[in-house]
Amino acid sequence: MSQRDELLLTARPHIDTRAGTTAPAEEDLLALDRAAQDLLFRQARTADTFTDEPVTDAQVAAIHDLIRYGPTAYNGQPLRVLLLRSAVSRARLLPYLSGGNRAKTASAPLTAILAADVDFHQRLPELYPHRPQARDWLADRAARVEQARFNATLQIGYLIVGVRAAGLAAGPMAGFDAGGVQREFFPDGGHEVLLLLNLGRPGPDAGRARLPRLDTGEVIRTYEGVG
Amino acid sequence: MSQRDELLLTARPHIDTRAGTTAPAEEDLLALDRAAQDLLFRQARTADTFTDEPVTDAQVAAIHDLIRYGPTAYNGQPLRVLLLRSAVSRARLLPYLSGGNRAKTASAPLTAILAADVDFHQRLPELYPHRPQARDWLADRAARVEQARFNATLQIGYLIVGVRAAGLAAGPMAGFDAGGVQREFFPDGGHEVLLLLNLGRPGPDAGRARLPRLDTGEVIRTYEGVG
Repeated sequence: MSQRDELLLTARPHIDTRAGTTAPAEEDLLALDRAAQDLLFRQARTADTFTDEPVTDAQVAAIHDLIRYGPTAYNGQPLRVLLLRSAVSRARLLPYLSGGNRAKTASAPLTAILAADVDFHQRLPELYPHRPQARDWLADRAARVEQARFNATLQIGYLIVGVRAAGLAAGPMAGFDAGGVQREFFPDGGHEVLLLLNLGRPGPDAGRARLPRLDTGEVIRTYEGVG
Repeated sequence: MSQRDELLLTARPHIDTRAGTTAPAEEDLLALDRAAQDLLFRQARTADTFTDEPVTDAQVAAIHDLIRYGPTAYNGQPLRVLLLRSAVSRARLLPYLSGGNRAKTASAPLTAILAADVDFHQRLPELYPHRPQARDWLADRAARVEQARFNATLQIGYLIVGVRAAGLAAGPMAGFDAGGVQREFFPDGGHEVLLLLNLGRPGPDAGRARLPRLDTGEVIRTYEGVG
């Protein structure tokens, strides 16, 4: 059964056999229209190959203009993105990648290094103006690194959704030497490198078959403990 | 100027004064339709108050059924969600919250504890079947905790988008004693508590004015370094 067939099947209302009534399918309980659900999640796939079509600066700006509204603690927005377009810049990155990530990164239209700005707190008087003292709460570097990493990672979640919102495929990669990439591209020591991301239109055979996902009952439970 | 007016303004094509031509507005460069952009990002807001309308288990399942397709490393899906519905369960949580988070958490229709399953690797032979040995790469607990935290945080990014996709408002909260919540609700020691999330329909005066966001030029740059 193809993935499309599976999707069509799951789109049908299902019978709740316990109640003997027809319950709405889960996607019909959402306010987001079905085409958007498919674009961002249900049909979207991590890509391992890409076409040659460039990803333009205007597209990248449009993605950022959308996802910058996603929430972060203290409105701190610590995510920073370094785009590698040129062959020279890409050649600097490749030695730090695991073997399986090199060919696709060399050939992707665009590769982004996703990092957290450890000194994001300096902007808080402007970004969180009703509590400008938040900057001073984050004077301790170790606490700040943790906050920067956590909130930038949330923003990477928004960013992957945003790449798909632009009709592109995202290829996130965790298999690389983060310390080496940090020293090579952020020698000032003020950034924590979190993830690499290839972007482009998916190529032929861009991904493998959809891997299994956990069911709701395996992920979500209701706490009913008493005294 | 109201937020709606601001949005309408930014929806107009803008003049690129450098080229002397009319460039498309950034939202028009996206494949995602404008209503979905508004629902998920542009009009969506973190809520501090909620109406009494319940958030049903069916809605929560529909949100999960959407966002479970978001990518994670090794397809590990470490996010676990504990829902607090009853007054008893909510009363157990409140002492661990910062003062400013208590009233809204006591009155929200639903509160979720978002945690990472440190033993997510046990499922990898099933979730990542082409490389079942990935489970053994994660035998070291410290490395696993880091992976679990990072990937569950990515999934929290998807989840916040998913809550909005259901037409609900999300109220993420980082101001709480994570160690205390962990001991109270996950005494087995196998979970890392990351964030709390209130869910519901936004109430009157649900949020403050939109806080400023960084411009693309402050977040994204292109690496052009040579030799």
